[in-house]
Amino acid sequence: MSGNEATEKDAVQYDFSQFQLDRILNSNSGSKTVSLLGRFKNLSQEKRAIVILEKKAFTEADLTSKTGFFSDSTTLRKEFVNDIYGNFECFPRPDINSVKTTVIYPATEKHIEKYSKQEIHIVQETPELYRELTLKHLEKEQFSLEWLYNILEHKKEKDRIVFEDACEETGFILLPDLKWDNKTAETLYCLALVRKRGIKSLRDLNASHLPLLRNILTKGVAAIEEKYGVARSQLRIYLHYQPSFYHLHVHFTYLKHDAPGIFCEKSHLLDSVISNIELMPDYYQRATLSFVVRQNDRLWDDFRRDSDCRKSLKRD
Amino acid sequence: MSGNEATEKDAVQYDFSQFQLDRILNSNSGSKTVSLLGRFKNLSQEKRAIVILEKKAFTEADLTSKTGFFSDSTTLRKEFVNDIYGNFECFPRPDINSVKTTVIYPATEKHIEKYSKQEIHIVQETPELYRELTLKHLEKEQFSLEWLYNILEHKKEKDRIVFEDACEETGFILLPDLKWDNKTAETLYCLALVRKRGIKSLRDLNASHLPLLRNILTKGVAAIEEKYGVARSQLRIYLHYQPSFYHLHVHFTYLKHDAPGIFCEKSHLLDSVISNIELMPDYYQRATLSFVVRQNDRLWDDFRRDSDCRKSLKRD
Repeated sequence: MSGNEATEKDAVQYDFSQFQLDRILNSNSGSKTVSLLGRFKNLSQEKRAIVILEKKAFTEADLTSKTGFFSDSTTLRKEFVNDIYGNFECFPRPDINSVKTTVIYPATEKHIEKYSKQEIHIVQETPELYRELTLKHLEKEQFSLEWLYNILEHKKEKDRIVFEDACEETGFILLPDLKWDNKTAETLYCLALVRKRGIKSLRDLNASHLPLLRNILTKGVAAIEEKYGVARSQLRIYLHYQPSFYHLHVHFTYLKHDAPGIFCEKSHLLDSVISNIELMPDYYQRATLSFVVRQNDRLWDDFRRDSDCRKSLKRD
Repeated sequence: MSGNEATEKDAVQYDFSQFQLDRILNSNSGSKTVSLLGRFKNLSQEKRAIVILEKKAFTEADLTSKTGFFSDSTTLRKEFVNDIYGNFECFPRPDINSVKTTVIYPATEKHIEKYSKQEIHIVQETPELYRELTLKHLEKEQFSLEWLYNILEHKKEKDRIVFEDACEETGFILLPDLKWDNKTAETLYCLALVRKRGIKSLRDLNASHLPLLRNILTKGVAAIEEKYGVARSQLRIYLHYQPSFYHLHVHFTYLKHDAPGIFCEKSHLLDSVISNIELMPDYYQRATLSFVVRQNDRLWDDFRRDSDCRKSLKRD
């Protein structure tokens, strides 16, 4: 490290008016966070900086203090009022409305990758598109299931098993998900892995699997209630489509916990799956199922090409 | 409504220095949102107000503009710097750092309940339970739809309409949701309100509504693409069950935006709804639908009592 660089870092007081934005790496409107890539014009032109901005949560102090939100220094600008509902923009005093800021400088390629987000798209998969595009894709790209067979064969993670039903047709192993600490009930996350091999996903399920699905529901719920004291009415029990691996498994999470991937474009409640198959034994071979793909995934290219093709056929 | 009240509502410009906080109803540090209950000292002492504050997501304009975040008017306060990682508090110019504010005044007991934090439960609603419990409950407890009829009849919010199809059978009005600033594409949230009255929710939909549903999908997508430049593959288009009001409406949100209530236990993709009715015209009169109820909602008592009753019948 040159002496110059060391001085730059230690005495650092970045000047935001000197920041030149190259591009927005990521933006999360839910958490009000943004990651930016750029340069400080008054520092090195070659070295890049990542700036991460995050709006702060409200604090009780700011809401109750006489000089906080509800004081003379706050102004309101009316947007519209309809009946008893009014919408405004509120401008609080700047010092109770600061933005959490992180600067990484100089940033490496790996930092840039870490703070970048992929574009995503939602596609509507008919049974035909499943056979022609998705199935071929997953046969090529599927990850190894070795880790999962290790669990089913008691070669790995045996001490983590919460419950096991050894039946080869309707049995399963229930264990805490890797993302969970196996303690905090408020973030409960368990996974049921079915013993039977060859059921890739939701798309393969039919009336012959009803005993398996009902068994997972009944015994999974009972095991979780017994071990963690969380009742059925506080559990979200669901399957992902597409799943991250193609061996049937069911997620159990605490209902109030915003676990990743619980959105309607990704998750299907086990109760709904059972109800659908009861109504129509081949429901999952006939339904159009939506799911999300990343823009740099080959599957998105395939779906887009197909959709463009259908559009041009319509025009002809 | 007394003349006094009408004046209060229409000329409304609340003064935040007059707001007296009774209690924090709910606070979400993830989404940086808070719901507050209190009174405006300069208005009626008996009537209560709910104030909902939400930090805004960052906009591209604010990040790229010469007078935005990266300008002379922004100051930084150093917290600590360790090697290449630095942490700061950033104080932007107030007018690019406003807080989205909703005021409900006067607020009823039901509004207070709606914005308060509570235990929640998931229930499985069969068609029988819908008729016996849910339907009776919603006939009693439903909010007034006056605000919605105001929109459909062009009495209010006419200038906010993004798109309108005036057909009484398949028509709808598309407008930005109250939760959206009508600017930031990354948080896009529009609502399609159907013109036809009397369709309470998903449960009422059958094959006769397919033209309506397809019309909302096609024209809603086209209007959003034209006005906001967001393509169908980046839109989450869905219905809530239970909805917050019982007049059929469809949500359009930006796919990457974690809008509230997009979880699988609450939201149903419009594409799936159409596919289900195509497969089975009376799907929504036959399916078991899960949904979430708050613990202090009477509906939860009804569902729990029913479930206990069925359990004890089984044991007998």
